[in-house]
Amino acid sequence: MFAHNKRLQYTVRVGSSNPGLANLMLEQFGGPQGELAAACRYFTQALAEDDPGRKDMLMDIATEELSHLEVIGTIVAMLNKGCKGRLSEAAESQADLYRSISGNGNSSHVTQVLYGGGPALTNSGGQLWNAGYIDSIGDPSADLRSNIAAEARAKIIYERLINLTDDPGVRDALGFLMTREVAHQQSFEKALYSMTPNFPPGKLPGDPRFTNVYFDMSQGEGDARGPWNNDENFQYVTGADAQQPIDGDGNATVGLTDDEQGVLKQLVARTASDPESDPLTGAELGMEGMVEEEVEAPSE
Amino acid sequence: MFAHNKRLQYTVRVGSSNPGLANLMLEQFGGPQGELAAACRYFTQALAEDDPGRKDMLMDIATEELSHLEVIGTIVAMLNKGCKGRLSEAAESQADLYRSISGNGNSSHVTQVLYGGGPALTNSGGQLWNAGYIDSIGDPSADLRSNIAAEARAKIIYERLINLTDDPGVRDALGFLMTREVAHQQSFEKALYSMTPNFPPGKLPGDPRFTNVYFDMSQGEGDARGPWNNDENFQYVTGADAQQPIDGDGNATVGLTDDEQGVLKQLVARTASDPESDPLTGAELGMEGMVEEEVEAPSE
Amino acid sequence: MFAHNKRLQYTVRVGSSNPGLANLMLEQFGGPQGELAAACRYFTQALAEDDPGRKDMLMDIATEELSHLEVIGTIVAMLNKGCKGRLSEAAESQADLYRSISGNGNSSHVTQVLYGGGPALTNSGGQLWNAGYIDSIGDPSADLRSNIAAEARAKIIYERLINLTDDPGVRDALGFLMTREVAHQQSFEKALYSMTPNFPPGKLPGDPRFTNVYFDMSQGEGDARGPWNNDENFQYVTGADAQQPIDGDGNATVGLTDDEQGVLKQLVARTASDPESDPLTGAELGMEGMVEEEVEAPSE
Amino acid sequence: MFAHNKRLQYTVRVGSSNPGLANLMLEQFGGPQGELAAACRYFTQALAEDDPGRKDMLMDIATEELSHLEVIGTIVAMLNKGCKGRLSEAAESQADLYRSISGNGNSSHVTQVLYGGGPALTNSGGQLWNAGYIDSIGDPSADLRSNIAAEARAKIIYERLINLTDDPGVRDALGFLMTREVAHQQSFEKALYSMTPNFPPGKLPGDPRFTNVYFDMSQGEGDARGPWNNDENFQYVTGADAQQPIDGDGNATVGLTDDEQGVLKQLVARTASDPESDPLTGAELGMEGMVEEEVEAPSE
Amino acid sequence: MFAHNKRLQYTVRVGSSNPGLANLMLEQFGGPQGELAAACRYFTQALAEDDPGRKDMLMDIATEELSHLEVIGTIVAMLNKGCKGRLSEAAESQADLYRSISGNGNSSHVTQVLYGGGPALTNSGGQLWNAGYIDSIGDPSADLRSNIAAEARAKIIYERLINLTDDPGVRDALGFLMTREVAHQQSFEKALYSMTPNFPPGKLPGDPRFTNVYFDMSQGEGDARGPWNNDENFQYVTGADAQQPIDGDGNATVGLTDDEQGVLKQLVARTASDPESDPLTGAELGMEGMVEEEVEAPSE
Amino acid sequence: MFAHNKRLQYTVRVGSSNPGLANLMLEQFGGPQGELAAACRYFTQALAEDDPGRKDMLMDIATEELSHLEVIGTIVAMLNKGCKGRLSEAAESQADLYRSISGNGNSSHVTQVLYGGGPALTNSGGQLWNAGYIDSIGDPSADLRSNIAAEARAKIIYERLINLTDDPGVRDALGFLMTREVAHQQSFEKALYSMTPNFPPGKLPGDPRFTNVYFDMSQGEGDARGPWNNDENFQYVTGADAQQPIDGDGNATVGLTDDEQGVLKQLVARTASDPESDPLTGAELGMEGMVEEEVEAPSE
Repeated sequence: MFAHNKRLQYTVRVGSSNPGLANLMLEQFGGPQGELAAACRYFTQALAEDDPGRKDMLMDIATEELSHLEVIGTIVAMLNKGCKGRLSEAAESQADLYRSISGNGNSSHVTQVLYGGGPALTNSGGQLWNAGYIDSIGDPSADLRSNIAAEARAKIIYERLINLTDDPGVRDALGFLMTREVAHQQSFEKALYSMTPNFPPGKLPGDPRFTNVYFDMSQGEGDARGPWNNDENFQYVTGADAQQPIDGDGNATVGLTDDEQGVLKQLVARTASDPESDPLTGAELGMEGMVEEEVEAPSE
Repeated sequence: MFAHNKRLQYTVRVGSSNPGLANLMLEQFGGPQGELAAACRYFTQALAEDDPGRKDMLMDIATEELSHLEVIGTIVAMLNKGCKGRLSEAAESQADLYRSISGNGNSSHVTQVLYGGGPALTNSGGQLWNAGYIDSIGDPSADLRSNIAAEARAKIIYERLINLTDDPGVRDALGFLMTREVAHQQSFEKALYSMTPNFPPGKLPGDPRFTNVYFDMSQGEGDARGPWNNDENFQYVTGADAQQPIDGDGNATVGLTDDEQGVLKQLVARTASDPESDPLTGAELGMEGMVEEEVEAPSE
Repeated sequence: MFAHNKRLQYTVRVGSSNPGLANLMLEQFGGPQGELAAACRYFTQALAEDDPGRKDMLMDIATEELSHLEVIGTIVAMLNKGCKGRLSEAAESQADLYRSISGNGNSSHVTQVLYGGGPALTNSGGQLWNAGYIDSIGDPSADLRSNIAAEARAKIIYERLINLTDDPGVRDALGFLMTREVAHQQSFEKALYSMTPNFPPGKLPGDPRFTNVYFDMSQGEGDARGPWNNDENFQYVTGADAQQPIDGDGNATVGLTDDEQGVLKQLVARTASDPESDPLTGAELGMEGMVEEEVEAPSE
Repeated sequence: MFAHNKRLQYTVRVGSSNPGLANLMLEQFGGPQGELAAACRYFTQALAEDDPGRKDMLMDIATEELSHLEVIGTIVAMLNKGCKGRLSEAAESQADLYRSISGNGNSSHVTQVLYGGGPALTNSGGQLWNAGYIDSIGDPSADLRSNIAAEARAKIIYERLINLTDDPGVRDALGFLMTREVAHQQSFEKALYSMTPNFPPGKLPGDPRFTNVYFDMSQGEGDARGPWNNDENFQYVTGADAQQPIDGDGNATVGLTDDEQGVLKQLVARTASDPESDPLTGAELGMEGMVEEEVEAPSE
Repeated sequence: MFAHNKRLQYTVRVGSSNPGLANLMLEQFGGPQGELAAACRYFTQALAEDDPGRKDMLMDIATEELSHLEVIGTIVAMLNKGCKGRLSEAAESQADLYRSISGNGNSSHVTQVLYGGGPALTNSGGQLWNAGYIDSIGDPSADLRSNIAAEARAKIIYERLINLTDDPGVRDALGFLMTREVAHQQSFEKALYSMTPNFPPGKLPGDPRFTNVYFDMSQGEGDARGPWNNDENFQYVTGADAQQPIDGDGNATVGLTDDEQGVLKQLVARTASDPESDPLTGAELGMEGMVEEEVEAPSE
Repeated sequence: MFAHNKRLQYTVRVGSSNPGLANLMLEQFGGPQGELAAACRYFTQALAEDDPGRKDMLMDIATEELSHLEVIGTIVAMLNKGCKGRLSEAAESQADLYRSISGNGNSSHVTQVLYGGGPALTNSGGQLWNAGYIDSIGDPSADLRSNIAAEARAKIIYERLINLTDDPGVRDALGFLMTREVAHQQSFEKALYSMTPNFPPGKLPGDPRFTNVYFDMSQGEGDARGPWNNDENFQYVTGADAQQPIDGDGNATVGLTDDEQGVLKQLVARTASDPESDPLTGAELGMEGMVEEEVEAPSE
């Protein structure tokens, strides 16, 4: 069970009200790489986990992410503090209010009109958070890798927000949040590699005929070699060979019963196209009345 | 630019028509860990990549994933081949058709009624594919880790489908597809580690005060230690210490102008709750007429 | 900030593994009336709230809802405990595993194949949770009413789940969770009515000409009167009167500049339909080859 | 069945074309608190309702909301009237057109490019309307409360739009629409309380042990008391007591068969983490090549 | 403005309660080809239309579609009438109720538990309706074609539902609804072709160099010719020719300032992959402990 | 299977970096009428198609659309090339970077912060692509019409983008892409009409009583006649006639068992509204404390 302490994990000191910046900060509140996604990701994994070490770690970090969600949400709330009163109390003329919410070049008008300046579970563009952002599948050799990647992504988004923010208090809190992603990634890495073996993920081995083959499917100037496709590590298949079926003739078959075949033939016959026809079409009907000279072609 | 060869990368030999199994296979066609997500993931990364080696690798693998999308989609089409004719030609009584689409315990009725048995870009439960499944953010130290994790997840889903399928031809093709995820993961791993340094992701370093700290936020019986939080690797903060603000007093502040403060006070006063009141409420109005004895409590 | 205690707020005692029931329980984990929605609803409101009483209450209840999310998620995990091993370890034949996940008449195959039996943030039909489920708008006279309604809805969904469950331990825990919704509704009711006035919501009064008018827009046998439209409370407008513009002639106008008018006329002329024409259409082209006798009409 | 009268329920008199304002108005056309949501909410409830009074009222109000959808959509169409011609006829230079759609600080470029200036079923930020906005669950004691809350929210959004609009004709129509929400809320309130009892919602009573308990889950400076948690109305549980399991030891159990236990043990053993290990990790590999001095920490 | 007549446009006579069939009928209530989508499609087009003939027609048909939405929704409500009482009144044992909602092989448990048997704005698989289903873009030469296609799709879905339903009253009403789609398609066809020219859509002509070219991008056994690519209508480009850039060398360029080039070079250098390296990777670390013999390959 | 040639189908020559324009171009990358939707639409149809001519055509065009996706995505990447370095390398002050991403009046801040300037599968407003954009239903008489309409829509969106772009290289490439939509529409038209009959779509004929009836459901000034409802083509039903049930009395019925009737009556009685009551309501409680004079009505 959870308990809440009214003090934030990290103190938020915002210099001044700034709804445009508030809107940008939503990226880590309700965006795909944000703290709600992180908390939900680890919490749901923890509930189903049977390994005691991983279960404990996942719940520790999930709980911390909830505290981070509170920090970033509080930053949003503080940055909106000044303007939410102006709109709800109609403290300025309509024209001034309109300018103040639509003149700052990002989607902060949505935040003000729809959410009243409160932190909303959307990204900075107003896209509603959805659980498709969470990629947990209930296997530790996959989920730990997903967690490592998620921490890496969150770290980068924080880095970008820091690069865009000149409020020292906001930068300071973002720096803390960014650093914790680095710490969490390290814990997940240790947890992954303390489970042996963890590659290939899962239990079933790969088919050895295809495990170390690299197909050069994109060909032309720009083809490159490196450790990801070199001859030490991979059988490199290129040229026409890369574009052949690997097994059989590359055609699909299915066993059908006589009844199924009969009714399928009936369907095919009913909907057959006639390759010999040259039918009049709707497009041709639609060209009537066209005067081609009127308009010039787009690339001229 | 792309070209298409009419032969499949791997030959599909389906034993017999089976719409329930077809529906299950949609998981890797239009599901979050499926081949459309994989192809879109690597293709969009390739377009923006400036490193020639990664760009080539991403396009090679994106192209192969399109061929995998074709293989899994063809499996779905073959498994549905028998039944699509029956419904479109109304080849059975209504009652028989209804039983045949609703009696097999998964969501195949949607596939038949809405999509006519064609492969749909949904998961096996009918959830529409959406681009939120793709977590690319345009930084290679994060995106390569995301790709590694995505391949691990896809491998597991294929493993589960193999465990659920007794059609030998379908198992054979799924085995190929599963193995290719293993191969791709290895390429992405090589690409990640051939970029040095790649940790922490991005350019900005973490704040050294918080980089190697582990907060034991979930406490009680079940607390565990391991390399993810041991004293060699981390400063382990537990007990009451873990539940204190790390910086300052944990309160949030924002600098407001006098005008902003004034209008905010006005808002607060207008919407203040009165802690001394004991108002009659809608719930109390709603209890009128209630006869408590009538029903027994749920846990008795 | 949050802390986690490893013990659940309410003890979960599940009788036996049952993946079909697990799937049903997802309704209150990741469904629209479920505990994640509740926790997010109150937590985000709390962050922006400036009234000390409401802020405290919202955070108290948000925190409790997180503990409820843990209880219901744990029920899901326990109900899936038996089957997740069978699939990941391939402990049965493929045919047996396929039957076990697709024969129980709800969407539990998605839970097993995609989520490995872990609690997923979807409803019982696999629909991904999304933040559109949360209707907070940042005004207490509206948000408290939304909270009251949300608690009422959650109570009903729990009641239905109790009616569908014969596992005594699950029923017992659901009874606790259901009852807490009743308690929370009462707190929100008290908070709403301790803020005076709270109707009409917001600050701006309604236009007195339209505030107590009832338009009888649906007419015919079945028209009914009651306190929601009786003459004591409302001016009841019916018959032809109800179907007249309330103000003016009911036509829309906009002031356009000469330039705007000019280019609009050009657009209208270019895309004008000719009412006097009787054009040949694609549908008519498409009727060629039709033999009407072949098929009988649907209602015969 | 429905009939349409070409005259609007309220006359729309827009002063001048203004695509930025048009975009803002979409909030009540295709936004979550908008008129489509209102109409769908009451209409779907009406279809399933068996109480003649509520059924009639729901259909009356649903029909009126459709007329409101027409009014707000007409406002959008009028505000876009001037600019839609300019883009479709290419009546200005590309640079001028680009400036005119992207210079007004909200998302009106989407409206112009994607929807051609027509009213789109999105909110003012372009988020597609979805049926998750509708929270009807088919129980009148819950649905009427949801309707009351929905009317309160819609009233507030109209109030904010009025505060942001200085076109007198638009303000006038918005004032009408806002007021009707007040009227509808009153009808729903009367309908709710004319059904006795209506609290607790549904049929099953709460468990009396937990119905009037308040758990003080968020503790610290800022704890507050009021009628929502005072001793007259609630048993107030605070301090360490609030953080204990309410029933039993707070641990979860499930009855498993021997087979289930066997295969689960196998899974746990296969994926066990080794707490004694100190594995080399990917993160450590990734730190190679790092030169720490190069960059300064974010908070310095 | 709209008015509602309490009588349905077509009389609904349902033989007996059947929640499984009710669930299937949702496809045309809240599915992508259903009546809500149809009504919204034509209504939103009507609001922005300036041609008087099309505007009138669009509103006529939109209004009729609302009446169809009522008919299909009423069918759903009638089919659920028997079971909604059983669940809300807990009229059977839990085990019987559970069986009755989960044993009929489609997603009707969602309808009962979440929506209480009321018609929900989802498709038959529980996928929430969203406005992305509506493809109107505000140009009549495109929108009329979209409407024609939408009517064709809706006709087919009704045909499939008729083929799956043996309740004579339901079949009869579905036959009416299906036929009206045929009628509407004919009206939209006439409207399209009474606007001349209507092809190519819009105002700008195509570039004559590319308007009648057919690229044979999918090559191999199965290549086919027909009126869609024959030499009378198209310049058919095949073989290696089809896979060449049509213009220039197929490389992309962008003009960058010196500053932009400088910082881009810095980014590329910082994130360069080293093609000569052969780094140890996480996958290799993860293979430690693997005993290959334990498991057999999937295709054996 | 697919192969990739590193050269683009059409050469992209972008004049200068321009993130605002890049963002606009996303409309045809990840928007509903964009190239991903087109490619997925034809590719999924091709997989299930049994007519050899259509199958080949669908795969030819699907493959070309993938190449178009590459062209438009490359345009986005080129337009973002300059700014992605600035943000990732923090090459400017925070204030300058903030201004550069939020000052250009569209949603390009999302593209930069969340996607790092890479082409994202969203529309120009940040709305995530979803498979609901694809309306294929697996019947050629419907799907070909849907394809025709989709090409028409895509053509218009390209036309609008051309009208908004003054970069000659971008205009040139957009002109190519737009023209190809015209070519594809012509192929789909030929394919539709080479299948005879293709109207009505599907196999089941319409009911002749309703196939050529036009209901004038929207009445009043503005009623118009044209070929879509004239007496040559349709039976025109207007006035009061249009608003009558077409069949029977317009009431809905369902056959219920005695048990079903009994429990339904119980439900109705339990939740009955009392039309004679005049209950005190929450709204009335909420009006306490209101001082009406304080605020002026909105329309004054």
